[in-house]
Amino acid sequence: MTTARPLEMPSTTIPQGLEDLLNAKVASLTTLGRDGAPQATLVWFAYNRDLSRFQLSLSDDRLKVRNLIARPKVSLLIFDPADQFRYLDVRGTARTEPDDGFAWADAFITPKYGADVRDFPGANRLVITIEPDNIFSQNGAG
Amino acid sequence: MTTARPLEMPSTTIPQGLEDLLNAKVASLTTLGRDGAPQATLVWFAYNRDLSRFQLSLSDDRLKVRNLIARPKVSLLIFDPADQFRYLDVRGTARTEPDDGFAWADAFITPKYGADVRDFPGANRLVITIEPDNIFSQNGAG
Repeated sequence: MTTARPLEMPSTTIPQGLEDLLNAKVASLTTLGRDGAPQATLVWFAYNRDLSRFQLSLSDDRLKVRNLIARPKVSLLIFDPADQFRYLDVRGTARTEPDDGFAWADAFITPKYGADVRDFPGANRLVITIEPDNIFSQNGAG
Repeated sequence: MTTARPLEMPSTTIPQGLEDLLNAKVASLTTLGRDGAPQATLVWFAYNRDLSRFQLSLSDDRLKVRNLIARPKVSLLIFDPADQFRYLDVRGTARTEPDDGFAWADAFITPKYGADVRDFPGANRLVITIEPDNIFSQNGAG
Protein backbone atom coordinates (compact mmCIF):
# COMPACT_ATOMS: atom_id res chain seq x y z
CA MET A 1 0.00 0.00 0.00
CA THR A 2 1.32 3.43 -0.85
CA THR A 3 -0.19 6.23 1.15
CA ALA A 4 0.60 9.74 0.01
CA ARG A 5 0.98 12.01 3.00
CA PRO A 6 -0.65 15.41 2.72
CA LEU A 7 1.64 18.38 2.36
CA GLU A 8 1.77 20.27 5.61
CA MET A 9 1.35 24.00 5.52
CA PRO A 10 3.94 25.95 7.51
CA SER A 11 2.48 27.50 10.65
CA THR A 12 4.02 29.63 13.36
CA THR A 13 1.25 29.33 15.92
CA ILE A 14 1.17 26.96 18.88
CA PRO A 15 -1.33 24.21 18.05
CA GLN A 16 -4.31 23.75 20.33
CA GLY A 17 -3.78 20.89 22.72
CA LEU A 18 -0.02 21.39 22.92
CA GLU A 19 0.04 24.61 24.98
CA ASP A 20 1.31 22.66 28.01
CA LEU A 21 4.61 22.17 26.17
CA LEU A 22 5.31 25.89 26.54
CA ASN A 23 6.00 25.09 30.20
CA ALA A 24 8.22 22.06 29.54
CA LYS A 25 11.53 22.20 31.38
CA VAL A 26 13.85 21.10 28.63
CA ALA A 27 14.21 21.34 24.87
CA SER A 28 16.63 20.06 22.26
CA LEU A 29 18.41 22.86 20.42
CA THR A 30 20.01 21.94 17.11
CA THR A 31 22.59 24.21 15.56
CA LEU A 32 24.74 23.75 12.47
CA GLY A 33 28.45 23.04 12.77
CA ARG A 34 31.08 24.56 10.54
CA ASP A 35 30.52 21.76 8.01
CA GLY A 36 26.75 22.41 8.01
CA ALA A 37 25.99 19.20 9.94
CA PRO A 38 23.44 19.27 12.76
CA GLN A 39 24.46 19.20 16.44
CA ALA A 40 21.87 18.85 19.21
CA THR A 41 22.11 19.59 22.93
CA LEU A 42 19.48 19.85 25.66
CA VAL A 43 18.82 23.35 26.94
CA TRP A 44 16.56 25.37 29.19
CA PHE A 45 14.15 27.72 27.46
CA ALA A 46 11.27 30.09 28.16
CA TYR A 47 8.29 31.05 26.08
CA ASN A 48 7.84 34.83 26.01
CA ARG A 49 4.07 35.33 25.74
CA ASP A 50 4.38 39.05 25.03
CA LEU A 51 6.51 38.37 21.96
CA SER A 52 5.07 34.91 21.14
CA ARG A 53 8.65 33.72 20.85
CA PHE A 54 10.80 30.96 22.33
CA GLN A 55 13.91 32.33 23.99
CA LEU A 56 17.07 30.95 25.60
CA SER A 57 19.81 32.26 27.87
CA LEU A 58 23.21 31.01 26.70
CA SER A 59 26.79 31.88 27.47
CA ASP A 60 28.79 33.21 24.55
CA ASP A 61 31.64 30.76 25.10
CA ARG A 62 29.54 27.77 24.02
CA LEU A 63 30.06 26.06 20.68
CA LYS A 64 26.31 26.11 20.01
CA VAL A 65 26.33 29.90 20.37
CA ARG A 66 29.26 30.32 18.01
CA ASN A 67 27.40 28.03 15.61
CA LEU A 68 24.15 29.97 15.69
CA ILE A 69 25.84 33.35 15.33
CA ALA A 70 27.68 32.12 12.22
CA ARG A 71 24.80 30.01 10.88
CA PRO A 72 21.52 31.17 12.49
CA LYS A 73 19.15 28.46 11.23
CA VAL A 74 18.14 26.37 14.26
CA SER A 75 15.57 23.89 15.49
CA LEU A 76 14.16 23.84 19.02
CA LEU A 77 12.32 20.60 19.77
CA ILE A 78 10.04 20.60 22.83
CA PHE A 79 8.55 17.28 23.84
CA ASP A 80 6.32 15.66 26.40
CA PRO A 81 8.60 13.29 28.33
CA ALA A 82 5.56 11.13 29.09
CA ASP A 83 4.28 10.81 25.51
CA GLN A 84 6.61 10.57 22.56
CA PHE A 85 3.83 11.47 20.15
CA ARG A 86 3.38 14.97 21.58
CA TYR A 87 5.98 17.52 20.52
CA LEU A 88 6.69 20.80 18.79
CA ASP A 89 9.66 21.62 16.60
CA VAL A 90 10.28 25.33 16.23
CA ARG A 91 12.24 25.78 13.02
CA GLY A 92 13.60 29.22 12.40
CA THR A 93 16.33 31.79 12.68
CA ALA A 94 18.16 32.62 15.90
CA ARG A 95 18.51 36.29 16.82
CA THR A 96 21.23 37.00 19.39
CA GLU A 97 21.35 39.95 21.78
CA PRO A 98 23.28 40.74 24.94
CA ASP A 99 21.36 40.18 28.18
CA ASP A 100 22.30 43.48 29.79
CA GLY A 101 22.30 43.22 33.56
CA PHE A 102 20.83 39.71 33.25
CA ALA A 103 17.43 41.37 32.84
CA TRP A 104 16.01 38.68 30.59
CA ALA A 105 17.35 35.78 32.65
CA ASP A 106 16.02 37.34 35.84
CA ALA A 107 12.59 37.77 34.25
CA PHE A 108 12.30 34.39 32.55
CA ILE A 109 14.84 31.84 33.83
CA THR A 110 14.74 32.54 37.56
CA PRO A 111 10.93 32.24 37.87
CA LYS A 112 10.78 29.09 35.77
CA TYR A 113 13.84 27.22 37.07
CA GLY A 114 14.54 28.81 40.44
CA ALA A 115 18.12 29.41 39.33
CA ASP A 116 20.31 32.46 38.95
CA VAL A 117 22.42 32.32 35.80
CA ARG A 118 25.12 34.37 37.56
CA ASP A 119 25.96 31.13 39.40
CA PHE A 120 26.78 29.33 36.17
CA PRO A 121 30.11 29.24 34.35
CA GLY A 122 30.49 31.28 31.21
CA ALA A 123 31.52 34.72 30.21
CA ASN A 124 28.70 36.79 28.79
CA ARG A 125 25.06 35.81 28.82
CA LEU A 126 23.12 36.26 25.62
CA VAL A 127 19.40 36.13 24.92
CA ILE A 128 18.62 33.98 21.92
CA THR A 129 15.22 34.58 20.30
CA ILE A 130 13.97 32.15 17.70
CA GLU A 131 12.09 33.79 14.84
CA PRO A 132 10.01 30.88 13.58
CA ASP A 133 9.68 29.95 9.93
CA ASN A 134 7.53 26.96 10.84
CA ILE A 135 6.35 25.23 13.99
CA PHE A 136 6.03 21.56 13.16
CA SER A 137 4.00 19.54 15.63
CA GLN A 138 2.63 16.15 16.40
CA ASN A 139 -0.13 15.46 18.89
CA GLY A 140 -0.96 11.78 19.07
CA ALA A 141 0.09 8.68 17.20
CA GLY A 142 -1.00 7.89 13.67
CA MET B 1 34.74 35.36 35.31
CA THR B 2 35.72 33.89 31.98
CA THR B 3 36.11 30.15 32.01
CA ALA B 4 37.65 28.61 28.93
CA ARG B 5 35.95 25.31 28.21
CA PRO B 6 38.27 22.48 27.26
CA LEU B 7 38.14 21.33 23.68
CA GLU B 8 36.31 18.06 23.49
CA MET B 9 37.86 15.27 21.51
CA PRO B 10 35.50 13.53 19.10
CA SER B 11 34.62 10.03 20.24
CA THR B 12 32.43 7.38 18.71
CA THR B 13 32.13 5.12 21.74
CA ILE B 14 29.25 5.01 24.19
CA PRO B 15 30.44 6.67 27.40
CA GLN B 16 30.43 4.63 30.59
CA GLY B 17 27.41 5.42 32.72
CA LEU B 18 25.17 6.18 29.74
CA GLU B 19 24.71 2.62 28.43
CA ASP B 20 21.10 2.62 29.67
CA LEU B 21 20.28 5.20 26.98
CA LEU B 22 20.82 2.50 24.34
CA ASN B 23 17.49 1.10 25.51
CA ALA B 24 15.62 4.43 25.51
CA LYS B 25 12.34 4.31 23.63
CA VAL B 26 12.56 7.54 21.72
CA ALA B 27 15.16 9.77 20.09
CA SER B 28 15.19 13.08 18.26
CA LEU B 29 16.37 12.76 14.67
CA THR B 30 17.52 15.95 13.01
CA THR B 31 17.84 16.11 9.25
CA LEU B 32 18.64 19.04 6.95
CA GLY B 33 15.95 20.61 4.79
CA ARG B 34 16.49 21.74 1.24
CA ASP B 35 17.73 25.11 2.53
CA GLY B 36 20.21 23.39 4.88
CA ALA B 37 18.20 24.27 7.98
CA PRO B 38 17.72 21.67 10.73
CA GLN B 39 14.40 19.82 11.21
CA ALA B 40 13.84 17.53 14.21
CA THR B 41 11.24 14.82 14.80
CA LEU B 42 10.93 12.11 17.44
CA VAL B 43 11.57 8.59 16.20
CA TRP B 44 11.97 5.02 17.34
CA PHE B 45 15.45 3.56 17.12
CA ALA B 46 17.45 0.48 18.00
CA TYR B 47 21.09 0.04 18.88
CA ASN B 48 22.66 -2.78 16.91
CA ARG B 49 25.30 -4.24 19.24
CA ASP B 50 26.86 -6.40 16.53
CA LEU B 51 27.57 -3.34 14.40
CA SER B 52 27.88 -0.83 17.28
CA ARG B 53 25.56 1.39 15.33
CA PHE B 54 22.27 3.22 15.91
CA GLN B 55 19.63 2.26 13.36
CA LEU B 56 16.11 3.32 12.43
CA SER B 57 13.24 1.91 10.38
CA LEU B 58 11.63 4.66 8.29
CA SER B 59 9.20 4.75 5.41
CA ASP B 60 10.56 6.25 2.22
CA ASP B 61 7.62 8.65 1.81
CA ARG B 62 8.67 10.75 4.79
CA LEU B 63 10.23 14.18 4.36
CA LYS B 64 13.00 13.29 6.83
CA VAL B 65 13.96 10.35 4.65
CA ARG B 66 14.06 12.44 1.50
CA ASN B 67 16.17 14.93 3.47
CA LEU B 68 18.71 12.40 4.66
CA ILE B 69 19.08 10.74 1.28
CA ALA B 70 19.80 14.13 -0.33
CA ARG B 71 21.82 15.51 2.62
CA PRO B 72 23.01 12.61 4.80
CA LYS B 73 24.47 14.53 7.76
CA VAL B 74 22.18 13.86 10.75
CA SER B 75 22.02 14.05 14.52
CA LEU B 76 20.28 11.47 16.72
CA LEU B 77 19.76 12.76 20.25
CA ILE B 78 18.91 10.16 22.90
CA PHE B 79 17.98 11.43 26.32
CA ASP B 80 16.92 10.31 29.76
CA PRO B 81 13.36 11.62 30.18
CA ALA B 82 13.93 11.71 33.95
CA ASP B 83 17.19 13.68 33.90
CA GLN B 84 17.83 16.42 31.38
CA PHE B 85 21.58 16.31 32.07
CA ARG B 86 21.95 12.76 30.73
CA TYR B 87 22.02 12.43 26.96
CA LEU B 88 23.93 11.34 23.90
CA ASP B 89 24.02 13.07 20.54
CA VAL B 90 25.13 10.81 17.72
CA ARG B 91 26.43 13.09 14.98
CA GLY B 92 27.21 11.43 11.71
CA THR B 93 26.22 10.31 8.26
CA ALA B 94 23.05 8.36 7.47
CA ARG B 95 23.39 5.28 5.30
CA THR B 96 20.12 4.11 3.74
CA GLU B 97 19.31 0.57 2.62
CA PRO B 98 16.10 -1.28 1.76
CA ASP B 99 14.73 -3.48 4.55
CA ASP B 100 14.07 -6.52 2.38
CA GLY B 101 11.24 -8.62 3.78
CA PHE B 102 11.19 -6.39 6.88
CA ALA B 103 14.09 -8.47 8.20
CA TRP B 104 15.69 -5.64 10.12
CA ALA B 105 12.42 -4.33 11.56
CA ASP B 106 11.42 -7.84 12.64
CA ALA B 107 14.78 -8.33 14.36
CA PHE B 108 15.07 -4.95 16.06
CA ILE B 109 11.78 -3.05 16.18
CA THR B 110 9.35 -5.84 17.04
CA PRO B 111 11.31 -7.09 20.08
CA LYS B 112 11.89 -3.57 21.42
CA TYR B 113 8.49 -2.00 20.75
CA GLY B 114 6.13 -4.95 20.38
CA ALA B 115 4.99 -3.51 17.06
CA ASP B 116 4.96 -4.77 13.49
CA VAL B 117 5.94 -2.06 11.02
CA ARG B 118 3.70 -3.73 8.40
CA ASP B 119 0.79 -2.22 10.36
CA PHE B 120 2.04 1.33 9.80
CA PRO B 121 1.35 3.61 6.86
CA GLY B 122 4.07 4.17 4.35
CA ALA B 123 5.34 2.67 1.17
CA ASN B 124 8.74 1.05 1.48
CA ARG B 125 10.56 0.55 4.73
CA LEU B 126 14.22 1.48 4.81
CA VAL B 127 16.92 0.77 7.37
CA ILE B 128 18.85 3.89 8.26
CA THR B 129 22.27 3.30 9.84
CA ILE B 130 24.10 6.22 11.39
CA GLU B 131 27.85 6.14 10.84
CA PRO B 132 29.07 8.33 13.69
CA ASP B 133 31.61 11.09 13.31
CA ASN B 134 31.26 11.98 16.99
CA ILE B 135 29.10 10.93 19.91
CA PHE B 136 28.68 14.00 22.09
CA SER B 137 27.42 13.28 25.58
CA GLN B 138 26.57 14.80 28.90
CA ASN B 139 26.18 12.87 32.12
CA GLY B 140 25.31 15.14 34.99
CA ALA B 141 25.03 18.88 35.54
CA GLY B 142 27.99 21.21 35.73
